[in-house]
Amino acid sequence: MNRLTATYWLETDFPLEKAIAIMAGEQSTGTFVKIPGESQELMDKYAARVESIELIQVVDSYSLHNGKRTNGPIQQAMVRLSWPFENIGYNLSILLATVAGNLFELAPFSGLKLLTIDFPESFKEHYPGPKFSIAGTYKQIGIKDRPVIGTIIKPSVGLDPETTAQQVSTLIEGGLDFIKDDELMSSSTYNVFEKRVDACMKVINNYAQKTGKKPMYAFNISGTTSEMLKRHDYVLGKGGTCIMVNLLWAGLSSIEEVSLHSQLPIHGHRNGWGIFSRNPAVGIAYSAMSKIWRMAGVDHLHTNGLRNKFCESDESVIKSIKACQTPIWAGSDRAMPVVSSGQWAGQAFDTYKAVGNPELMYLCGGGIMGHPDGIKAGIDSVKQAWQAAIDGLSIEEARQQYQAVDKAFKYFG
Amino acid sequence: MNRLTATYWLETDFPLEKAIAIMAGEQSTGTFVKIPGESQELMDKYAARVESIELIQVVDSYSLHNGKRTNGPIQQAMVRLSWPFENIGYNLSILLATVAGNLFELAPFSGLKLLTIDFPESFKEHYPGPKFSIAGTYKQIGIKDRPVIGTIIKPSVGLDPETTAQQVSTLIEGGLDFIKDDELMSSSTYNVFEKRVDACMKVINNYAQKTGKKPMYAFNISGTTSEMLKRHDYVLGKGGTCIMVNLLWAGLSSIEEVSLHSQLPIHGHRNGWGIFSRNPAVGIAYSAMSKIWRMAGVDHLHTNGLRNKFCESDESVIKSIKACQTPIWAGSDRAMPVVSSGQWAGQAFDTYKAVGNPELMYLCGGGIMGHPDGIKAGIDSVKQAWQAAIDGLSIEEARQQYQAVDKAFKYFG
Repeated sequence: MNRLTATYWLETDFPLEKAIAIMAGEQSTGTFVKIPGESQELMDKYAARVESIELIQVVDSYSLHNGKRTNGPIQQAMVRLSWPFENIGYNLSILLATVAGNLFELAPFSGLKLLTIDFPESFKEHYPGPKFSIAGTYKQIGIKDRPVIGTIIKPSVGLDPETTAQQVSTLIEGGLDFIKDDELMSSSTYNVFEKRVDACMKVINNYAQKTGKKPMYAFNISGTTSEMLKRHDYVLGKGGTCIMVNLLWAGLSSIEEVSLHSQLPIHGHRNGWGIFSRNPAVGIAYSAMSKIWRMAGVDHLHTNGLRNKFCESDESVIKSIKACQTPIWAGSDRAMPVVSSGQWAGQAFDTYKAVGNPELMYLCGGGIMGHPDGIKAGIDSVKQAWQAAIDGLSIEEARQQYQAVDKAFKYFG
Repeated sequence: MNRLTATYWLETDFPLEKAIAIMAGEQSTGTFVKIPGESQELMDKYAARVESIELIQVVDSYSLHNGKRTNGPIQQAMVRLSWPFENIGYNLSILLATVAGNLFELAPFSGLKLLTIDFPESFKEHYPGPKFSIAGTYKQIGIKDRPVIGTIIKPSVGLDPETTAQQVSTLIEGGLDFIKDDELMSSSTYNVFEKRVDACMKVINNYAQKTGKKPMYAFNISGTTSEMLKRHDYVLGKGGTCIMVNLLWAGLSSIEEVSLHSQLPIHGHRNGWGIFSRNPAVGIAYSAMSKIWRMAGVDHLHTNGLRNKFCESDESVIKSIKACQTPIWAGSDRAMPVVSSGQWAGQAFDTYKAVGNPELMYLCGGGIMGHPDGIKAGIDSVKQAWQAAIDGLSIEEARQQYQAVDKAFKYFG
């Protein structure tokens, strides 16, 4: 069956089947009266199909208050809808309009969240997923079987290209695998994109020549589509190995365009995601949205980290990491999860235990820069903590074996 | 002062000034420890500045429940932050990351909504706003001083190009000004984009030759950026006068790219907007987001309509309509508000009264197609109701003067 399917959690005080018929109607034929041309045959072929409805429970109060009410019982349910491939074609903006368009605002619902998306089979050939994925990223950096240890350039704003490059030099001399621009920074007046690439790649290329190992720098190319393509080419021309995009604001049309053109891994930053996730009764699950971004060609996807500085629970973080690592069609379409926010050596143990493998990026800001024995010791502490976790050491054993880890626990723990 | 400023409603149980310092830090220098290179001079120049904090009230319960709590008093406040232009440059993806990035997820906040955005003065030259705006749209259609009366092709899915063109013929022969594709439809297997343009523009061009008046058809070009540019060119080449984009999913990078290239008004559809608006405690106000889209070059912006089939209140709808009509730099940067959803002749009176002018698009699906005396009478009823409203007639007077209006009230009222 070459159909697009989606699962929703929803809440309504309308009769359940009636509410879901309104939802299916809005997302396919959509008007409030029968109109000419709307034949039964056409409906059977192209209307959204209700695959299943499962009542979970009846609750006492509304999750969202700004709707239209019947004062009937407030039912929470899981619903699965499907659409024929023919309606959508190969078009991610239309796919999103179909599974996540006007329906969040429909009057019957006091809650509606998109939980899963399963693509039509014919998407497999057209959307093979990211070009580099986890294996390609490891290969570019020249490591395997451990996390890519990285950081974000800080302060996020204010540095000029030369100061940025000095910071890069310190970080890679300390043994770091990966550095990224901040999401707030693409080409500011005092840190023009091309000048930053020039300065940083000079340092990185020199280091690579000296050591045979090339740390990856994700340059934030976000801008208009043509600026993004131009910036990709510039990074590639200077020997760079990664580009970064602000996914939600740049948007799918440009991500796909960049990805079709790109010869570099795409590092996807999800800033703004709180709008989609903060209220449990409305929005899109990250496991669903991250699939769309992978189909658009994104290689690395931010997931937050354990005990982060945001509101996201550890349970939700682990679910996101596992979602990125789960194949859609094949292992090559997995995205590398980017674990960050308030991370230091300490979370390596729990993260490894919960995820079950080390195939992720592990980004620390203060957790590296703020180590009491300096940046090199900060990098060592994170690398050693991960090695210890992979080797099956307990935190206590790791602290005994590695001095930098012990110091990190004393300072950050 | 060449600064970007933004106003937020927020809720926190942290000490208010501390919470806002965390927010300002995250959206500029952002890490949890002091790091090298973060000098006081650099902070003074480039860190986000807290312009004002106004405590509104202390409340009894949290708006959002999934945060981290101190159990201090739950304060709701209005806060104004600003950033120097230098941080952002001319880059809308970076601007959004700055005013609406990671901050929705920050631990101290049990509610955070972006209410207003004011651009740096230097944006004025770089972002003059939509190319056509309200005046240019009127000019293309050949009308003025009244709403653009329009409809959406329905059923939204399932029709082939010929059937679509037949529907277009009936509608424009009935005197309609504007027709748009559904947001679910760009290029499906049974209704390929170019074939739909061919079939529909043949009908529209013939009508224009016969009558001297060319109704506007907004073709949904949403796709990858290059597909969008190609589709724009195709529409232009066939004599079409409008293109449509699914704003949230296509994204700013492609909208801006299309707009820089475009010789046609851009009709902006906001499907998915419920994610941003449905919960009052999180998201972005439409008055703020619509400004960004206007800066990116969008000419028409959907606003919902009075007594719509969605959850949005009439008060919120009117606020959105007025926001689109309010100049940023000049009258030429106004977007034409697109009033739709459950609309028929009946809402013309209240809409005109609340908005104070008729400079909008007024789209009816069932309100035209479902009129008891047919499509022509449906179109007449809507046009006459608006003329009556502009002429200062009461509903009763309009029903006496116009038979189609009277019938509409009997049937839909």
